[in-house]
Amino acid sequence: MKTIHNSLFELLEHKSIRSSICDGLFGIEKENVRVDKNGRMATTPHPGILGDKFKHPYITTDFSESQVEMITPPLDSVDKVHGFLETLHDVVTQNIGDELLWPQSLPPLLPNEEDIPIAQFGDKGVSKEKYREVLAKRYGRERQMLTGIHYNFSLSDRLERKLIKICCPDGNTESFREELYLKMLRNFMRYRWFLVWLFGSSPVSDPSFKMKNLKTGEKKQVVCGHAVSIRTSSGGYRNEEEYFVDFNSLNVFNESISKLVNNGQLTTHDELYLPIRLKFDTDERISHVEVRLLDLDPYEKAGISKDRLHMVHLFMLYCLFQNESDVYDEKQQEIAANNQDLVACYGLKPDLKLSNFEGEDILAKDFGKEIYSEIQNFLNVAKLDKEEQYISAMKHCEALMDGSEVRTSLRIREDILKEGFIGFHMKQAQKYQFESELSSFRFHGFENLELSTQLLLKAALRRGVEFEILDQNENFVRLKQGDKVEYVMQATRTSLDNYSSVLMMENKLVTKMILDEFGICVPGGMNYLLKEKALSDFELFEDKAIVIKPKSTNFGLGISILKENNKEEVYQRAVEIAFEHDNSILIEDFVPGREFRFFVIGDKVVGILHRVPANVKGDGQSSIRELVEKKNLDPLRGKGYVTPLEKISLGEAEAMFLADQNLIFESVPKLNEIVYLRENSNISTGGDSIDFTDDIHQSYKDIAVEATKALDVEITGLDMMILDVKTPATEKNYSIIEMNFNPAIHIHCYPYIGENRYLNEKVLDSLGF
Amino acid sequence: MKTIHNSLFELLEHKSIRSSICDGLFGIEKENVRVDKNGRMATTPHPGILGDKFKHPYITTDFSESQVEMITPPLDSVDKVHGFLETLHDVVTQNIGDELLWPQSLPPLLPNEEDIPIAQFGDKGVSKEKYREVLAKRYGRERQMLTGIHYNFSLSDRLERKLIKICCPDGNTESFREELYLKMLRNFMRYRWFLVWLFGSSPVSDPSFKMKNLKTGEKKQVVCGHAVSIRTSSGGYRNEEEYFVDFNSLNVFNESISKLVNNGQLTTHDELYLPIRLKFDTDERISHVEVRLLDLDPYEKAGISKDRLHMVHLFMLYCLFQNESDVYDEKQQEIAANNQDLVACYGLKPDLKLSNFEGEDILAKDFGKEIYSEIQNFLNVAKLDKEEQYISAMKHCEALMDGSEVRTSLRIREDILKEGFIGFHMKQAQKYQFESELSSFRFHGFENLELSTQLLLKAALRRGVEFEILDQNENFVRLKQGDKVEYVMQATRTSLDNYSSVLMMENKLVTKMILDEFGICVPGGMNYLLKEKALSDFELFEDKAIVIKPKSTNFGLGISILKENNKEEVYQRAVEIAFEHDNSILIEDFVPGREFRFFVIGDKVVGILHRVPANVKGDGQSSIRELVEKKNLDPLRGKGYVTPLEKISLGEAEAMFLADQNLIFESVPKLNEIVYLRENSNISTGGDSIDFTDDIHQSYKDIAVEATKALDVEITGLDMMILDVKTPATEKNYSIIEMNFNPAIHIHCYPYIGENRYLNEKVLDSLGF
Repeated sequence: MKTIHNSLFELLEHKSIRSSICDGLFGIEKENVRVDKNGRMATTPHPGILGDKFKHPYITTDFSESQVEMITPPLDSVDKVHGFLETLHDVVTQNIGDELLWPQSLPPLLPNEEDIPIAQFGDKGVSKEKYREVLAKRYGRERQMLTGIHYNFSLSDRLERKLIKICCPDGNTESFREELYLKMLRNFMRYRWFLVWLFGSSPVSDPSFKMKNLKTGEKKQVVCGHAVSIRTSSGGYRNEEEYFVDFNSLNVFNESISKLVNNGQLTTHDELYLPIRLKFDTDERISHVEVRLLDLDPYEKAGISKDRLHMVHLFMLYCLFQNESDVYDEKQQEIAANNQDLVACYGLKPDLKLSNFEGEDILAKDFGKEIYSEIQNFLNVAKLDKEEQYISAMKHCEALMDGSEVRTSLRIREDILKEGFIGFHMKQAQKYQFESELSSFRFHGFENLELSTQLLLKAALRRGVEFEILDQNENFVRLKQGDKVEYVMQATRTSLDNYSSVLMMENKLVTKMILDEFGICVPGGMNYLLKEKALSDFELFEDKAIVIKPKSTNFGLGISILKENNKEEVYQRAVEIAFEHDNSILIEDFVPGREFRFFVIGDKVVGILHRVPANVKGDGQSSIRELVEKKNLDPLRGKGYVTPLEKISLGEAEAMFLADQNLIFESVPKLNEIVYLRENSNISTGGDSIDFTDDIHQSYKDIAVEATKALDVEITGLDMMILDVKTPATEKNYSIIEMNFNPAIHIHCYPYIGENRYLNEKVLDSLGF
Repeated sequence: MKTIHNSLFELLEHKSIRSSICDGLFGIEKENVRVDKNGRMATTPHPGILGDKFKHPYITTDFSESQVEMITPPLDSVDKVHGFLETLHDVVTQNIGDELLWPQSLPPLLPNEEDIPIAQFGDKGVSKEKYREVLAKRYGRERQMLTGIHYNFSLSDRLERKLIKICCPDGNTESFREELYLKMLRNFMRYRWFLVWLFGSSPVSDPSFKMKNLKTGEKKQVVCGHAVSIRTSSGGYRNEEEYFVDFNSLNVFNESISKLVNNGQLTTHDELYLPIRLKFDTDERISHVEVRLLDLDPYEKAGISKDRLHMVHLFMLYCLFQNESDVYDEKQQEIAANNQDLVACYGLKPDLKLSNFEGEDILAKDFGKEIYSEIQNFLNVAKLDKEEQYISAMKHCEALMDGSEVRTSLRIREDILKEGFIGFHMKQAQKYQFESELSSFRFHGFENLELSTQLLLKAALRRGVEFEILDQNENFVRLKQGDKVEYVMQATRTSLDNYSSVLMMENKLVTKMILDEFGICVPGGMNYLLKEKALSDFELFEDKAIVIKPKSTNFGLGISILKENNKEEVYQRAVEIAFEHDNSILIEDFVPGREFRFFVIGDKVVGILHRVPANVKGDGQSSIRELVEKKNLDPLRGKGYVTPLEKISLGEAEAMFLADQNLIFESVPKLNEIVYLRENSNISTGGDSIDFTDDIHQSYKDIAVEATKALDVEITGLDMMILDVKTPATEKNYSIIEMNFNPAIHIHCYPYIGENRYLNEKVLDSLGF
């Protein structure tokens, strides 16, 4: 009879199975020790700005108050989980003042053991603190300062259902599910040394770092000339001895651990530090597995690269599908454990020998190649959905194995030789701090969301407001904290506004009518449903500057601006054009002045922005082309709306606009001369955004707030024309053009000139988080 | 020098003037006496259901408690104002119980003078009542029971601006405006007899009706063998004597009236009962003119036809543009007044002679033809926008003049001869009562609005909630009562709902997810962004009945329903089809049962509706065709969504559906046999709507309310599949399909079977009106 041990691989011939293999949920937990600028563990408390660590879903502390723990939620792709992790890293980095995040699993300079602070959780967290005291006593506080990455993974419901459908149509689906996970676990245990061998990243500790020997109690530095991972070695973060458990069913697995607890070898099930663990939900159903043997990679800001995350995923799938020839008894477990210890301590030895499961010696590199080619075979057969990412991950492994890419453990050794343990890691930490600053407008892994939503979510993440993306295309998210739940679309469409106010804002004519009734200036004008009527009204407008536009405008199409005393033919043509774009048009007085976006929340103007067409400022030497290239280096400028500002193009439109000024790209503007490359001020064509929040006379802000009261609006982006921002408002020097119900917030957070107005934080404040 | 007296007509050569002539604002005030079923004036109080008459903008009382006064707001077309008036008439008719509205300017059977109740306005209305006491004393209560129509009209701002631009570019525009109105007034006064002559409709009173002679104090019946309008005759509703005023400027006009007041001839300016009056706004600027000489037309439900309203408009424009040859001095005024008196009393005399303004005799019919041809000339030159309506009005006049159409006054005489004064008018009143009932779902003149909005506005109208149409295409209205203002779109999109709840309802996936989290049943299923993935998931669905549909569905396009154990090719084709309509699809469990629309407001299910495909019920004799024709006679059935139900078609789709049942249109169903003509149950294809509000087990209503709480929704139309409406809800016998943020209300007010659930009233209640 076929069992799950040797039959799953064949199922890969089913297209429907193959199409579901890649699905799954992924989550990462990562710890970093906070350090001061000299590489000493920070002894400051966990920063209050990162919220209540007892409740925070994403950011808390681990064993020590000085160990920040970052936790991603379960996410449905490796890219997202990596991005979330990186963003957590950015947010923590930006909220710990002068301190830095230590990028190495082995600790920085530590104080005396008694001065390593155990994490404090207040009254609510007494039991957490007690447990930490026990650990401190048994393993020594220094050992608890080892940090790393936990990789959580669960199979998708979709894959499980399909496997059950084929393998177990009428059987006990729950026990089949358990078998799946246990099979994955057994193979993982067997081949785990492979991951340590390739990815281990804790080869050398600082000379000052001494851990208590669990048997002798003596404190000494763990030194090993060929180590790849001291953390996962027998001297690292491990139980007092190697315990063996029965992996052949969930029942016996749990029983065998209970036995260790009953024997007093462990305090709780949790204390069994297996390199991979089963995790359960509140119904005691398996929820996921937790892979625990990944060190922090000091060459990656997030502590691990996407390639490696993909590789671990692929490795886990391989473990699930790969046939087994034995039952993984104690003997086999001993071999596997021994192999892990060997590669952890001696993995850099070229001729390192391990043992295969027949108990025969085998060169680590040959054994590695075997495993690698089996994974390659699995990949070929399974034809994974996002194949290229897994192929890239495999290439990375191959390069590590054949030496064309240097293994992290070796690179670290070499860099430490050059720069010292503290020096090297501090350089990395500083580099990452700078990078976090540069990408502070971005929520990595969620770049498909609008920047406004990315920023809102970053603010939520910092505060410990849990969120879920309900609909990515619509930027629709759910925010949750305690009992409070809010649904937000596009960062500013919230429950704070009532529906009819939104409908009023959506309708420009209605907005204007209401504002006018409240004595607030709007452009005068008329609305026409009939072209004939509009055409015959020339006389009403001939002596005025006017704007003729379709009632609903998109990207300015169909809009004409007519100067005073224009000709009737011009007027008529403009009317015709407007009617080509809509069945209703507006003829409005042209309002002179500059346009400003007022962002109002409740009764406060929280940001004012003015946009300027794409331009460069001369230095007296550089050509326009050079000035543009230089301006485009600003990390805030990108292409395709993934950054707060867009790069200035040197295209046809810009060339034509310059030609009108008798300029070419090679012209050299004078010192401080401003040259415009565009007529329109859109950010999308390289325009600059300039914060004016503190530079506009209060009277205009009062009017903006009055306007929101008139429409009973809580959040709006109000566009106002102003003649002179320093002169108080009169009935003639300003005009409100429109009010937007979904205004962007990122432009106020990352203007070209001016300060961050933190509208993401202010929206969260107003929502009551 | 050209003056306004003789220069305006020339301006008609300006196309821009011509294009603006038809614009203007129109308003009607109309009174009807309430009567009992015997034609006696009702002595009951004004019905409380019609709101507070002291504040009601549309429905109040005039002199007597028994006189209902209906007031339209100023509206920008004759059609709208006529429709509004008719709707007011419908609403009053439907809210006065057994009483009827008396359709004649001359009163019904009155009680003794002292028993004619003066309108009571409570504490706030003491001064109103006092003034009525004065009038009662001076004119006698009987005379105050004459009723009629006041026609308010103002020139459009657009026309005024254009005239000012041409005639008075640098002058005093305000005095120019006054000149315009006074010119219109003078010509109206000159030619007013023409309107009385043609449209007068109060030729005979009931023999019991006696009015106090203002000079002698004697009470007697006014009898006149050739009268067309007793009401507008010298014995009708007039001042004690004919007072002359100076019409040559606003100043002298007002001064001459003040003189009459100072002399004690009038109590106030208001007491001067001119056939046309100037009305002023709060800034004492002319707001409009009020034409007062129109009798109620007993052949029209609304008291006046659209033709006549158009004719009065045209007459007024003619008065504005027609050149004047004199200054309208006292002599001229006397001639004009005399002419009015003559046609009012003797207008039916074929050889009636009037006086022209040279003081020469002229046959009324010749004088009438002169005026008619001048109006015709004006119409020809002015080429009005909505020409056909004015041409129709002119044809009506022509027919009245040449006798091819019988004048109302003559028809009334003849009908009274046949049926008696009371009998004839009561017959008309009853006919209109029935017609009001038949069109009770309609807001006349506003048929471009959705029925739901029409019904909401009717409810507002009854309660005295003022409304404005802000955007007709969007069914966006403003409701106002006292300080309370609400903006409502499509009758159910209101300020009661917060924006994010609407966004949740708009997104079907989000709605389902949230309901599911709250333990409310929704169809199980999966969402696919990738076709490949959906195609490979056949195994997950092969043993279930499923629905495959695009994420956003319109009119059911792209939806397939698959039975259990379907073939993979069928499944794949259905997936392909769904992806042709959207880039994201849903595969959901097919939910058996019948679909019900639950309309929820707050925490109450206020209506439940089930729709059934177009069908007929056999009588054992008629063919399907005959049964359809009979069913289509229902006044609730129309074509093109202007009625609550649609007529059943006998088209290709119906023929094919019958053919599948081996039937043709000529087949004769058995007695009580139900034959369906369509598969789909849409109302738009002749489906029936059946009210189930009281026929569904409470548990489903509780679930519907829970669902609204889950999404924090105030108003929603929730679609639920239910297996058996009498069996309590379990986890398996119902499923919520979707929640609509703009559900129709008319279907619950006018179902095919079941009672009116008055959701229009309930929405207004919930809005706090």
